[in-house]
Amino acid sequence: MVITDLIYEGKAKRIYKDEQGADTVLLEFKDSLTAFNALKKGSFENKGSVNRDIASMLFKYLAARGVESHFVEDLGPISMRVKKVKIFPLEVVVRNVLAGSTAKKLGLSEGQELLEPLVEFYYKNDALEDPFVSDDQILMMKVASKSQIEELKNKALKINSLLLKLFFDAQIRLIDFKIEFGADENGKIILADEITPDCCRLWDQKTQEKLDKDRFRRDLGQVKESYEEVLKRLTQVIAQHSSQYNSQTSGRIG
Amino acid sequence: MVITDLIYEGKAKRIYKDEQGADTVLLEFKDSLTAFNALKKGSFENKGSVNRDIASMLFKYLAARGVESHFVEDLGPISMRVKKVKIFPLEVVVRNVLAGSTAKKLGLSEGQELLEPLVEFYYKNDALEDPFVSDDQILMMKVASKSQIEELKNKALKINSLLLKLFFDAQIRLIDFKIEFGADENGKIILADEITPDCCRLWDQKTQEKLDKDRFRRDLGQVKESYEEVLKRLTQVIAQHSSQYNSQTSGRIG
Repeated sequence: MVITDLIYEGKAKRIYKDEQGADTVLLEFKDSLTAFNALKKGSFENKGSVNRDIASMLFKYLAARGVESHFVEDLGPISMRVKKVKIFPLEVVVRNVLAGSTAKKLGLSEGQELLEPLVEFYYKNDALEDPFVSDDQILMMKVASKSQIEELKNKALKINSLLLKLFFDAQIRLIDFKIEFGADENGKIILADEITPDCCRLWDQKTQEKLDKDRFRRDLGQVKESYEEVLKRLTQVIAQHSSQYNSQTSGRIG
Repeated sequence: MVITDLIYEGKAKRIYKDEQGADTVLLEFKDSLTAFNALKKGSFENKGSVNRDIASMLFKYLAARGVESHFVEDLGPISMRVKKVKIFPLEVVVRNVLAGSTAKKLGLSEGQELLEPLVEFYYKNDALEDPFVSDDQILMMKVASKSQIEELKNKALKINSLLLKLFFDAQIRLIDFKIEFGADENGKIILADEITPDCCRLWDQKTQEKLDKDRFRRDLGQVKESYEEVLKRLTQVIAQHSSQYNSQTSGRIG
């Protein structure tokens, strides 16, 4: 991997130019961790590598099930090559169980199961603290068209149903998660950014223990161990899936 | 008017039982004025009467144009008889020009004309400070169904287009307004609450001077005079409308 110019440095990732092509960039996962719009800062050793591995695994899992993302390939321990996309300035949040800002805003109790998954949009703007926006406000700001909003919702719900199954098999409850989408050079909408414990709420199925960034946000300790636990469980489940898949395939061939 | 029991006292109105019928209640307009979720309090003489007159005039204007409301008849100087409805716990806001909380939240400048009117919903709950909610959050909370949300939006937009015309004739720019809806005993959705300078932004067409509650919110003075000016102009315009209408009618008959 030849890293030349830094294009952008975010709270948990850096983006570099890719010498091998103009259509791709290199995404590097940092060890740092922030919360509350970066008012709270931290880090732990190996976080970049753990998150890169989780993100990479989830992108591959989703791709095999028809969800295209910006992921191209892993590079070294903390980076991946990704397609260059134009990011929609929207955080797309999917909730299966109420927690965090929405529970608080509506005076509903954390942990309440929703009958149907809820999709929410937040306008990505640090200075404005990523305000929650309605579909009509998104249209008003011309951030996305009506059909793009529908497509973002449908893709988010498909990703949710696939991840729910995977995390369930890993004995983890997928409470909610935040994803971002981009448009490629042809205007096609694909999943971008990352899916890691930084932007998911993941609760252990048996103990309801949190295995995500809330451990850092709420000073619960064991942050590193929790992220590593998520990686360990996902690795096991995906290995099982793949051995099942192989045995099915060889069965069919034989 | 025989007033018996007080049912409810709000920030700017009281609701009393109506001895004459179980399907109606009496709405009394108070002289008090509040802002910032009642953290700021004030009042002025005659406000109840001015607001009752404006609300009554607007309800009649809208009724003549096919928009049903809870209004039945005026009673004395500060009250009206209204149909009993079950209020949707939603503040429905229509914006023609960006101002107030939405302009601030999205980092957009106050006074920006919108290409299309924007409809927003706020969940009515003083303890939660009336949070902004999306259609999907309304569905999640079961506050309204998908078709009811559409109906609320369509009715709000129709009211907006009718009020825009009326205020334009009164040389007032209708920047935005907040309305509430209720369901009558048959489940029919009708306009409820009030439309007054308490819940509209009204700017003078020539001077851009504010003629609404922002004068109180922002300590601009001349609050009473502005409310009275709105009533005066609306009274004139509606008198003109009605004389035009009468001359058209007699023309047709003759």
